[in-house]
Amino acid sequence: MQYIAERILLFSEKKCSIRKEVRIRIGVPYPVQQDKVEFSVDRYTSGCRVEIEGIDECGFDLYGMDSLQAVNLASNIEPLIERLSGDYDFFWLSGEPYFDEEDEVD
Amino acid sequence: MQYIAERILLFSEKKCSIRKEVRIRIGVPYPVQQDKVEFSVDRYTSGCRVEIEGIDECGFDLYGMDSLQAVNLASNIEPLIERLSGDYDFFWLSGEPYFDEEDEVD
Repeated sequence: MQYIAERILLFSEKKCSIRKEVRIRIGVPYPVQQDKVEFSVDRYTSGCRVEIEGIDECGFDLYGMDSLQAVNLASNIEPLIERLSGDYDFFWLSGEPYFDEEDEVD
Repeated sequence: MQYIAERILLFSEKKCSIRKEVRIRIGVPYPVQQDKVEFSVDRYTSGCRVEIEGIDECGFDLYGMDSLQAVNLASNIEPLIERLSGDYDFFWLSGEPYFDEEDEVD
């Protein structure tokens, strides 16, 4: 996939101190074809691919009413990281925890 | 500018019923060079261009700590539309007002 943006983080499995790198990347928004999805699309409906490299987790597509919404949804990876946080701890490259308990997630 | 995502809206000047089209487009995130900005950058710091076509308004760049944040900030155009709403009313292509008073803006 040709990607346009990425975030590089460190992660470790729960109860394991070894930290490895994970790259979360998003692609260029693309027009959604009606026969590929179960919801009704129009000429503006767009998808945007999210790929996860470094963790054994499938990539997925997010959909928006237009390309701007699709890329906005795909580039908000907090819900993804929160979901994966059941199995992994995430850190910035600086070593700081990804989710500061005092921070509210945007 | 080569853009990757856009939103097409209708707008009218305040107290004028004529509606015209405006296209808000964002570019591919790019690495920010230290000599171009006044804040401290690292190898991940990224910018993302926002262009407005149809309204006499300058484009601008938004910056993030990485390319994912830059494109996420640029693709959230609500602050831009809110700012321009002092001079214009905005509508979806369906004709519905962009900001429904009962909606909370994300």
